[in-house]
Amino acid sequence: MKRFSSVSLAIITIFSTAAMAQEPIEIIEPAKITAPEKVELGKMLFFEPRLSKSGFISCNSCHNLSLGGVDALPTSIGHNWQEGPINSPTVLNAEYGLAQFWDGRAKDLKEQAGGPIANPGEMGFTHELAVTTVNSMPDYQARFAAIYGKDSVNIENITDAIAEFEKTLVTPNSPFDQFLKGDKSAISAQAKSGYQLFKDKGCTSCHNGPAVGGTMYMKMGLVKPFHTDNPAKGRIAVTGNSADKFVFKVPTLRNIELTYPYFHDGATWTLEEAVNTMADIQLGQQLSETEVKEMVAFLKSLTGDQPQIVLPILPPSNANTPRPVPFGG
Amino acid sequence: MKRFSSVSLAIITIFSTAAMAQEPIEIIEPAKITAPEKVELGKMLFFEPRLSKSGFISCNSCHNLSLGGVDALPTSIGHNWQEGPINSPTVLNAEYGLAQFWDGRAKDLKEQAGGPIANPGEMGFTHELAVTTVNSMPDYQARFAAIYGKDSVNIENITDAIAEFEKTLVTPNSPFDQFLKGDKSAISAQAKSGYQLFKDKGCTSCHNGPAVGGTMYMKMGLVKPFHTDNPAKGRIAVTGNSADKFVFKVPTLRNIELTYPYFHDGATWTLEEAVNTMADIQLGQQLSETEVKEMVAFLKSLTGDQPQIVLPILPPSNANTPRPVPFGG
Repeated sequence: MKRFSSVSLAIITIFSTAAMAQEPIEIIEPAKITAPEKVELGKMLFFEPRLSKSGFISCNSCHNLSLGGVDALPTSIGHNWQEGPINSPTVLNAEYGLAQFWDGRAKDLKEQAGGPIANPGEMGFTHELAVTTVNSMPDYQARFAAIYGKDSVNIENITDAIAEFEKTLVTPNSPFDQFLKGDKSAISAQAKSGYQLFKDKGCTSCHNGPAVGGTMYMKMGLVKPFHTDNPAKGRIAVTGNSADKFVFKVPTLRNIELTYPYFHDGATWTLEEAVNTMADIQLGQQLSETEVKEMVAFLKSLTGDQPQIVLPILPPSNANTPRPVPFGG
Repeated sequence: MKRFSSVSLAIITIFSTAAMAQEPIEIIEPAKITAPEKVELGKMLFFEPRLSKSGFISCNSCHNLSLGGVDALPTSIGHNWQEGPINSPTVLNAEYGLAQFWDGRAKDLKEQAGGPIANPGEMGFTHELAVTTVNSMPDYQARFAAIYGKDSVNIENITDAIAEFEKTLVTPNSPFDQFLKGDKSAISAQAKSGYQLFKDKGCTSCHNGPAVGGTMYMKMGLVKPFHTDNPAKGRIAVTGNSADKFVFKVPTLRNIELTYPYFHDGATWTLEEAVNTMADIQLGQQLSETEVKEMVAFLKSLTGDQPQIVLPILPPSNANTPRPVPFGG
């Protein structure tokens, strides 16, 4: 009897693994932390406002881990309250992206992390001053020495540590993942219909993989043009290839309930409107009100466990630390 | 033998309690949390940027719990990058203050919490919109209902919860507190000399009690005028009494190593300079270089255990939530 159970279980496991393998969406796995000291240092730097000219803006300002890893604004607020050019993508599950930024101009999280620090419209600092700042504090010096070796505070290692922290910002255990793992009651009948629709309509041709996106670039406005005031031209800025005009990295749909407003221009505030727009301009289809509700129910099932972050305590500045320049300068 | 030990212990306890009672500085006790749900709600609201017009500024923006409960800027950055009029005081141990704000215009933390939300130069919002925002989210509604009763989302309760969280932001167990408790090796000989000097010179006539400050108002520039470009006139703005010109609440010296730059104008960046200025304009004294170093060593021994904060996860906005107005408007 016991042996039969084991065999049955094995058969069920094989069967459900096979079934899962056919699913276009894969489970998000919890973070495996192999270098906890580096992750802790990266967390400090992620919350470090002294990486900005003003001393006020940190990575977490626009990728707020209380708010799904975004600022929940159409476009971000930068140094001196400058209006950002594009919607801040979530940092959650960002490691699953084939590249970083909407246009994929950074090959990975490490390369991305250096961008905003030195961008005059974002943190408004320089890499040189960021390094001088971090290197001025004995606590940071000791942490870098322990991880990267003596005299190792440089922008390479600063961004490496930030990226290592960001890799831990995954959101496993969403109701949809529980459903994928075999718990058929983990999501509602409405969400199940929404998922079926999501596959049947062809959404999964772009939104697939563990992050339900991030695996490819795609033209925004494939069937009909996307109407926006946002001047971003997408991947053409990286490749110079005219075929890449309005081509953007497909965003993740994980935690999409939290990462409003939507699209690269951040002009769409509700999931209902976002779903309708996607169906219309990417697929040339109109969805019924019921179908939209089903789709939204499915999308909301993609909200996973948010990373539990203990706020880092940052070391104090001293006489060697460059002073922030919040005003003028 | 056992009874003798108990008696000895009792005598020592009485003796050391008596000795401690003579000290002008008292030990900071760890927070006693009696209403954890209210504290948790207050923490969410403390980190809630949607209490600001822009959706970008929270209490934690200027009272950053990674940075000793301050923004470490001369004066704060407000809505639309407005330059604040005065240095942000630390929220750490603020409950020990006889009143709140530099001029004591709020009688307690609850009254204080409502100020920045509605101040056009800070969070730039209104209490009405803050209430509408919080009340739009079922998660917040449920938490308020459980704590304050049905339909209880109002500014009274919002500020009450924030204050309840802030009361937990104490920093016990500093080296100096360990010293006060009897561990004579907890601080250096230099710091001990500094403490003796701190008492002998008369610093403790203003900086006393558990927070080493916050117990009274005092004129800034008692013996010689304080030179500053800052237009703040102090407590006269509250009392209308000309004797209160340049009279401010004595700030806490707890965690003073973390809460630079100093004084209400935030123009002094080092503890050495701050100590010299205080000796000069408040006491009419000049300290030797050695004395300043001793005083600074003592002041650095006042850094306690920083509150360990698990970053709250905030509920998502929905169609009923007022949209942030970061730009224009």
